[in-house]
Amino acid sequence: MKIKDLGEIKLIKRLAKGVRCDKSVVKGIGDDTAVIAWKRDTYMLYTCDMLIEDVHFRRKRATPFQIGWKALGRTISDIAAMGGVPRYALVSAAIDPELPVSFADGVYKGMKALANKFGVNLVGGDTCRSKKIAIDVSLIGEVERKNLVTRCGAKPGDLILVTGAIGGSVKGKHLTFMPRLDEARSLVKKFKLNAMIDVTDGLLLDLWRILDASGAGARIHQSLIPVSDEADSFEKALSDGEDFELLFTMSPLEARRFFKTQLVRMKTPVTLIGEVTDKRDGFRLVMEDGKQEKVTPEGYVHF
Amino acid sequence: MKIKDLGEIKLIKRLAKGVRCDKSVVKGIGDDTAVIAWKRDTYMLYTCDMLIEDVHFRRKRATPFQIGWKALGRTISDIAAMGGVPRYALVSAAIDPELPVSFADGVYKGMKALANKFGVNLVGGDTCRSKKIAIDVSLIGEVERKNLVTRCGAKPGDLILVTGAIGGSVKGKHLTFMPRLDEARSLVKKFKLNAMIDVTDGLLLDLWRILDASGAGARIHQSLIPVSDEADSFEKALSDGEDFELLFTMSPLEARRFFKTQLVRMKTPVTLIGEVTDKRDGFRLVMEDGKQEKVTPEGYVHF
Repeated sequence: MKIKDLGEIKLIKRLAKGVRCDKSVVKGIGDDTAVIAWKRDTYMLYTCDMLIEDVHFRRKRATPFQIGWKALGRTISDIAAMGGVPRYALVSAAIDPELPVSFADGVYKGMKALANKFGVNLVGGDTCRSKKIAIDVSLIGEVERKNLVTRCGAKPGDLILVTGAIGGSVKGKHLTFMPRLDEARSLVKKFKLNAMIDVTDGLLLDLWRILDASGAGARIHQSLIPVSDEADSFEKALSDGEDFELLFTMSPLEARRFFKTQLVRMKTPVTLIGEVTDKRDGFRLVMEDGKQEKVTPEGYVHF
Repeated sequence: MKIKDLGEIKLIKRLAKGVRCDKSVVKGIGDDTAVIAWKRDTYMLYTCDMLIEDVHFRRKRATPFQIGWKALGRTISDIAAMGGVPRYALVSAAIDPELPVSFADGVYKGMKALANKFGVNLVGGDTCRSKKIAIDVSLIGEVERKNLVTRCGAKPGDLILVTGAIGGSVKGKHLTFMPRLDEARSLVKKFKLNAMIDVTDGLLLDLWRILDASGAGARIHQSLIPVSDEADSFEKALSDGEDFELLFTMSPLEARRFFKTQLVRMKTPVTLIGEVTDKRDGFRLVMEDGKQEKVTPEGYVHF
């Protein structure tokens, strides 16, 4: 069997077999970010993301600055989705040595701009040569134990919320997005979130991940979902991916408190799109005409 | 100017400009491993290494198991060279989806075998598609503050020692080497090492790195350097690279204590190859015929 026939989700489950972790590992393979008990009051968060030329960007359409920005921004978004703060980054870069030095300058300028904005320490990395550019950023973050949010705490009755608007990111946002770090920190500090993820592979697939990890179902409403002007259609917006928005659930009481106190103060819009249901009710999308569609995991699967 | 014309060492120095780090960063860009003050009694070590098909291995000559072994082994060797213990690894893998699943199985089998041997927790990663295989491993380690060894503590008068034998690694050892972790730990726990590095880019270039960072010179002796049977010649052995041996310096008193007490107990041979001198004396190689050659940084530079 070929790797593409197995699919990414099954591949990762298969490769994880036989991996032994000690007691300090709170969340290992399977989440976007590992959670490690390292200090007494905080968890260490540990994540990486690889950017490959012609998969995640095209050299003709992205500036070097944007490539660097995106490479680091994706990992900051991962840390934000756990409620944490990014601290230390390493950058492995495979670059074509025939490229001008100004290209490398631009990539690192993009990374440094974002690192300085969010107080991330760029502490090292590795460089090697390759015809196709590959940039892997690994990032260590930190979160107060009480503020950790994972994918797996969604409860039936929870409301489902999303920041910003989804879809059409490929037209530019995927290269220029601002990781929702300030929003996530402000949320976890003031409210009890039950589950959170950043939308990287499409709203449907990433919500499915929360539901799968939490053992729950959901009902979301077409009329509520905030679709970006850049999206080609509602259907496409649901699986476009690389939105880097926060998707999270909280109890109705907590959501009520959030909308009462926060909405005017938060610059980034937060929209209610549906509710978490019992697992037996499945994952359903209620269309504007009242029809209900059953949702199955799709969106951007890498293999 | 092209990246290849600038060279790797200058490129890294250039890219590091404008990077801001807070006080917790003890060693940032420039060392193979970052050192971070995170807990009270220990430093966090943080390193990454990228393996690229046709640069670091050829698919025809390396088994998937060996590719995985090497990918993780290189980072363990980095942590060992700082005197530390490896703890948590992330693996970013770009793989051709047309490859059989057994290929991915093999790569992860190689990593898991080494991880389990040294108690490394594989806590996650990222997978994506790419025609050429790229595997980036990032590794977090830990070292008691008193046991940290860096490149920059070599003092004139120190003796220079190396584990194992160098050269000819390309004939197979680079795919099957055992990281010198047990040796390094046993050394730093019992002896005072002034500087250490793992030999990845050739004995000469890596010793030059110690001398450059320490502000010192050195005199090493052809007749003392342990050359592997696999090496094509003495000259080639000095710059072959990927030996993954430990190269370190200690005071003559400490070295004497080492040779008196340890040699019989340590399975891996340790050989005295020369002494650290004043910076003004430069870096010299004393040949068997008594002639002295001046050494300039060479070996395997990536661009």
